[in-house]
Formats: sequence, C-alpha cells, structure tokens
Amino acid sequence: MDAADPLAAIRDRFVLDAAPDEASGGAGVYLDGNSLGALPRAVPGRIADVIAREWGQLRIRSWTESGWWTAPERIGDKIAPLIGAGPGRVVVGDSTSVNLFKAVVGGVRMAGKGCTEILVDATTFPTDGYIARSAARMTGLAVRPVEPGGIADEVTERTALALVNHVDYRTGRLNDLPGITHALHSAGALAVWDLCHSAGALPVGLDAHHVDLAVGCTYKYLNGGPGSPAYLYIRESLQERFESPLPGWNSHADPFAMDPAYTPADGIPRGRVGTPDILSLLALEAALEAWDGVSIEAVRTKSLALTDFFLECVQAYVPPDVVRSLTPQAHERRGSQVSLACSPKLGSSFGQGGTPVAGLVMDELIRRGVVGDFRPPDVLRFGFTPLYTSFADAERAAWVLGEVLRALPEVSSGDAG
Amino acid sequence: MDAADPLAAIRDRFVLDAAPDEASGGAGVYLDGNSLGALPRAVPGRIADVIAREWGQLRIRSWTESGWWTAPERIGDKIAPLIGAGPGRVVVGDSTSVNLFKAVVGGVRMAGKGCTEILVDATTFPTDGYIARSAARMTGLAVRPVEPGGIADEVTERTALALVNHVDYRTGRLNDLPGITHALHSAGALAVWDLCHSAGALPVGLDAHHVDLAVGCTYKYLNGGPGSPAYLYIRESLQERFESPLPGWNSHADPFAMDPAYTPADGIPRGRVGTPDILSLLALEAALEAWDGVSIEAVRTKSLALTDFFLECVQAYVPPDVVRSLTPQAHERRGSQVSLACSPKLGSSFGQGGTPVAGLVMDELIRRGVVGDFRPPDVLRFGFTPLYTSFADAERAAWVLGEVLRALPEVSSGDAG
Repeated sequence: MDAADPLAAIRDRFVLDAAPDEASGGAGVYLDGNSLGALPRAVPGRIADVIAREWGQLRIRSWTESGWWTAPERIGDKIAPLIGAGPGRVVVGDSTSVNLFKAVVGGVRMAGKGCTEILVDATTFPTDGYIARSAARMTGLAVRPVEPGGIADEVTERTALALVNHVDYRTGRLNDLPGITHALHSAGALAVWDLCHSAGALPVGLDAHHVDLAVGCTYKYLNGGPGSPAYLYIRESLQERFESPLPGWNSHADPFAMDPAYTPADGIPRGRVGTPDILSLLALEAALEAWDGVSIEAVRTKSLALTDFFLECVQAYVPPDVVRSLTPQAHERRGSQVSLACSPKLGSSFGQGGTPVAGLVMDELIRRGVVGDFRPPDVLRFGFTPLYTSFADAERAAWVLGEVLRALPEVSSGDAG
Repeated sequence: MDAADPLAAIRDRFVLDAAPDEASGGAGVYLDGNSLGALPRAVPGRIADVIAREWGQLRIRSWTESGWWTAPERIGDKIAPLIGAGPGRVVVGDSTSVNLFKAVVGGVRMAGKGCTEILVDATTFPTDGYIARSAARMTGLAVRPVEPGGIADEVTERTALALVNHVDYRTGRLNDLPGITHALHSAGALAVWDLCHSAGALPVGLDAHHVDLAVGCTYKYLNGGPGSPAYLYIRESLQERFESPLPGWNSHADPFAMDPAYTPADGIPRGRVGTPDILSLLALEAALEAWDGVSIEAVRTKSLALTDFFLECVQAYVPPDVVRSLTPQAHERRGSQVSLACSPKLGSSFGQGGTPVAGLVMDELIRRGVVGDFRPPDVLRFGFTPLYTSFADAERAAWVLGEVLRALPEVSSGDAG
C-alpha cells in the first residue's frame, strides 16, 4: 500500500525518521498529528534566517522589507485553498479561542435584530462553548447546546448563529457541513464552523457551501508548530458588515496614521487585532510549503484508506471486545482520526490509583514508540496525517496496541475476550 | 562615558556590531529599540533547539516534558521583577490589544455597580482607545478621553477605571503612575496601566503602587522579537474576582478534563486564553536572559544619562530652531526616548509630494545608518535601550542628524537658523 501511495514521497518533507532513540521520541510511529503536527523540514532553516537576518540585521526595516506587516493576509491566502476559500477571505493571527470570540460576536452583530440565542455544538471542544457563552453574555443572547445532527430541527427564527465543530475532537465524527449550513441559512441563521480537526485532512469547501464564518488552528494537520497562530475566515459578502469586538490598531484602515478614531479596514484585514506574532507566523508559512503540489482531495483519499486499514488491523490484532471504535464507519462521517474506547472490563488493570485505564494504555503505547493520545475517560485517539503517515505506521500501531492490551491481566486471562 | 558605564558589557549580549554593511542594516546606530528591540544572542540557539529537538523529536511530549504548558506563567514570573511585581501576578500570551480587552472588561466587572464610564488617556496609543471603546460598548459604559495630567480632577464616583499609558508613545512623556493610581483609588476607580513604552526602561512598581491591572508588550525594551507575546498583570488581591471576557480552555481550572462547564483557574492562569504560542514565548524567555544580573534601577540611571547626553549633543550639533524636543526635560517625566518635532519651516524641503518632511529626514538618517522612526505629522523618535545603546551611539545620532538637517536648503540658506 505504501508503494502505491502517490503521497508517499511527501513524508520526506517532514522530520520523522531520525535514528531510533526511544528516549528522545525521535523514532517510532507518530499518530498525534491531530494534536501537534510533525516538524516540516523547511521550518528550521527559514526561522534561523528570520531570526538572524530579518530580525538580527534588518530589524525594524523587516516590517516592510521582509513582508512582516502583510504576513497575516499572505499566509491566510496560502491556507485558503486547503479549506476551499478564495483569496482575501482568511487572515492568520491570535489563538483559536480569540478567533472564536471575533467570529461569534461578529456573527451576532450581523444577525437579525430579533435573535435571542446562539446554538452551540453539544459535543464541542470545550473552548468553543466557553467562548460562545462569554460572547452571548456580552451581546445579550442565550446559548443553547444542540447535537450537530439535531441543528436542522432545532434552529428557529430566533437563532442568530450556530457554532459547530467540523470534526468532533473526541470521536473523529465528521459533521455535515453542507447540510447544517444550508439548514441554518434556511432559518435565517449564520453558520460558524470550527475547522481545527478538519483543515488539512479533508476538503472543507467554505466558499462552495456558503459558510459565513470559520476559525481553525494551524498546529494539527497544517503542521505550523506548537501554538502556531489560528485563522479567521469571513465570507466575502459579509466582510463589510463584520464588526470586530477586538478592533485593535492592526485592523484600522490606516494603522500608521495613529488616528484616535477607529475606521475599520476594508476586507479581511478587518479581522486582525494587534501586532502579528512574526516568528510563529513565518514558521507556519514555511510549514505550508509541505503542501506544494498536493491536492486536498488526494489527502482525503489517503486519509480514508489509512483509517480503513488501521481499523482492519485493529480487528485483526486486538482481541475482540477490548476496544470499540467511536469513529463512524461511514466515510462521509469520518474525519482523519480513529478513537477507540476501552472496554469497562479493563477498569482495574494496571492498578494505579486515579488514572483511567485508557490513560495507562496510552502511556504504555508511547513507551513502545506509538504516540497517540488519551482523552478522558476512556478514549485512545490515533490521528492520521496523510502527508506523512504511512500504512506501515498504521499497521505497527495496531500491532503494538494488540500487544499492550493482550498483556493486561483481564485480557490474557480471557475475562475480556 | 562609555568607559564608566556599568552596563557597557551587557551590549555583548545582543547582535549589534556586525561588519559595517549599509545595505543590510547590520551596522550603524540603532535607536528604534522602543519599537523593535535588537536580537539577543541567546535567542537563535535556543529557538533552533526548540524547533529541532523539542518540536522535531519530542513533539507532543514537550507540552509536559519541555515545560511548554507552563511557559505563560513561568515567563510572566521572569518579567515580573522588571515591573515591580511579585510571582504569580503576570501571565504572558496574546497581543497587547487582546490583553487590553481582558483588562478593561475584567476591570469593569470588578468596579462598582453604579459606574457608567471608563476614562482613557486622551494621548494614548490608538489601540488602547479602540479596544476601550469596544469594551465599553460590550459592557454598557461610556468612554471619556482625559489627559493623564487631568485624571485626578476628572475621576468621579461613576468612573469604573482609567486606562493610561505609562510612557506616551509619541512624546516620551512619563506619566505619574503612583499619583494617578492613588487619585483613581481615592475615587473608588481602578487603575489600568499600559506599560508598552516603560517596561524594561524604568522601574514601574506595580505592586508597590497598588496598580490593579496592567498590560504591556515584550518586543520593545524587553527585546522578545517581532510581535512577541504581550502580558497581563492582575493585582493579587483582585485575581479571584477577575472574570475574563475571553475564557478560553487554557484558563480553566482543569483544562484537560474537557469539562463542558467553565470553572476558572485560581490565580494568574485565569488570564490565559488559548493554546500558548510556544516559538514566540520561548524566544522571549531566551531574550530575558539578557537581564541576568541587571537591575532596573541601573537601567533607569543609564537611560536618563543617555537621553540627557543626546539632548546636549542635539543642542551642540543641530542648528537652532530646526527641531524642538517634545520629551520633557524633567527626569521624573521622561521615558527612555527622545522625540524631536521638526520645525514647520522645513515644510517644503525635499519637495516630494505627500510625505511629511520629518518622514524624509528619518529616511535620510536611516540611509546614513542611524535608525530611529517617524510618527506623523512631524515627529522624529529616538529610543534608548540602556542594555545596548552606548553614549557613542547617542553622539553619532545627533551628529548625523545635524548633517542631514544642515543639508536642507531652508537650513543651509539660514532661513530656519
């Protein structure tokens, strides 16, 4: 399968195959790119130059001469094709949480006057719910949690917008972006999508599906580095109505006029806030070079093949009934991760107080060189990044998982079998 | 003066004295550290290791094993002594504008119920005013601009807080932090200070003067790099009452519990929002090593000596009445920059359409290796960073300024003399 993989050579654009050294984590199988993407080879040299020459020698001149000032929009335009957006619709900067605040408040201000509520994905990554509640408190609306699958039935004429995760962080379920967006629009509400777990793993189609606002991080499938800046998408036709709750000087129509009165910039720079974080932005820009010549459709094809194959291997190598997949079997409802829930029968294994067994299983996997992650109470998450994950990686991960689970007393004695 | 300077050796901790190369900007006199601090020598090696080993090899494990997760508070504690704060009162992350929003909204929520207004420094850097107006709009208050010197007279029992710049970005005037803070407290209002142009240049004394909230950037006198993250200070006794308008998951009491209900963390982590921007944070941490063994009092002594000497040299080398200093002569009202306003008599010089003459003078200074900056309509700014600026730098800058100004037709013909 690896020999037939058209993306196989892209792996060389990443630092992955260091000399085996378990202590350093340099080798092994890395299936946590859905939390922190691996290091693209283009980053170290680029950042060394940014620091030594652009900052160290040119200093302040780099704001113009090295293109620092325009980096948020320039890099936004490089992310745009990966999420189905035209140029001038994506701006990079701030954290996902900060961009969620801009999107939700900005969305409420564009919604109809009589709106009283915001719908929030009931299974959302927590920060979306926290920020939506703050935005609602500050705009006089209420928040109502709704399962993504129920939004079409729950949206009313009082709904300003719904904030929904494209891929569920815990289960890897892919929510129906076109259908939910259409249902929201039919009721006069806006659609605000969180793309953290989908961007870079599958086609999103923001423009094609008329999404109003979207945010996402860049450190998962976009491999921008730890805490790299997030982005904000604003549908082109809504940009002139977007009123940011964070109108920092970078979003002014003429920032260096130092005007005491605020006049928002035209277009997507209106989504900027303060001075952009150049080291992290330019690391992200270098990381995006890994996408040169890669189509998101090819990535999706490989992603589904990888997760299909991993699920097959789990079935082959892991004793029955010890884990079960929370990730949908249906391709149209699957993101690029597989989440396995540990059976309650494993509850007493390892015997260490307080730590759920799934956490201990993941610790042991990592010790054996297979890096995924654990989400309470019982979920083992394995992320598949088609740019660098191989089919051999998927098989080895399932094999080692089988070994670790078979070593548990409940499994080896047949109690859970 | 340089031979007698106890801080002279600290200059070696920065990349400044590269081989003269006008085109690269590598040599010359750098007096723009009040906009972007020079590169500390500790940064390139540290960031190379962060990228290659912590991200490239350890990957996700670095969130715990490399101390990434706790970086915002750890680095806050390293900035704290420079601004007179005890440990646990400063958290690093987000831009200055975002932290201003947290501070102003958080401050309004702690203020008395009957408060109806926010006072904002009428001479503020623009972003403070823009963000204060947004915060006021979202909390139902009004904004009233007041000159810092008039705050004691203007504050009333309806004032929730005042947001004031410690050092004025345009003129270099140092505002009376102890006096204004005391006046605000006497009227029952909170004091929120913007330290962007003072932190790292002079003692601030946040704890000693009972400041309530403060924010500042780290890329000026703290040399953290372009767009490096800002910080938020919350007075210890107010922390449990601080309600962030940006309650991202990093500010949760137990972030990895992934709790749908928000419970704020105790202490200063409550000021966090989203995932911290690790490359920029750790560059800042390395940059702060330049402060090892340096007292802020020694920095202040040298800063005043530098600006005194520069003003003397300007008087000696620049023809009379061509420029005048906007920066106060009195030490207790002077920051660490000198702002010179160009005489209106120079209005027609250079003859290029649209660009104010002061902008053209600064362009010519930069061409001759003296880097300051220009703020419209007529201000030449020269920043003095005591960690690396020498007295020889100050003299050369004044000398070159005299040369540039004497070459103007209005000056050489005696019209402006």
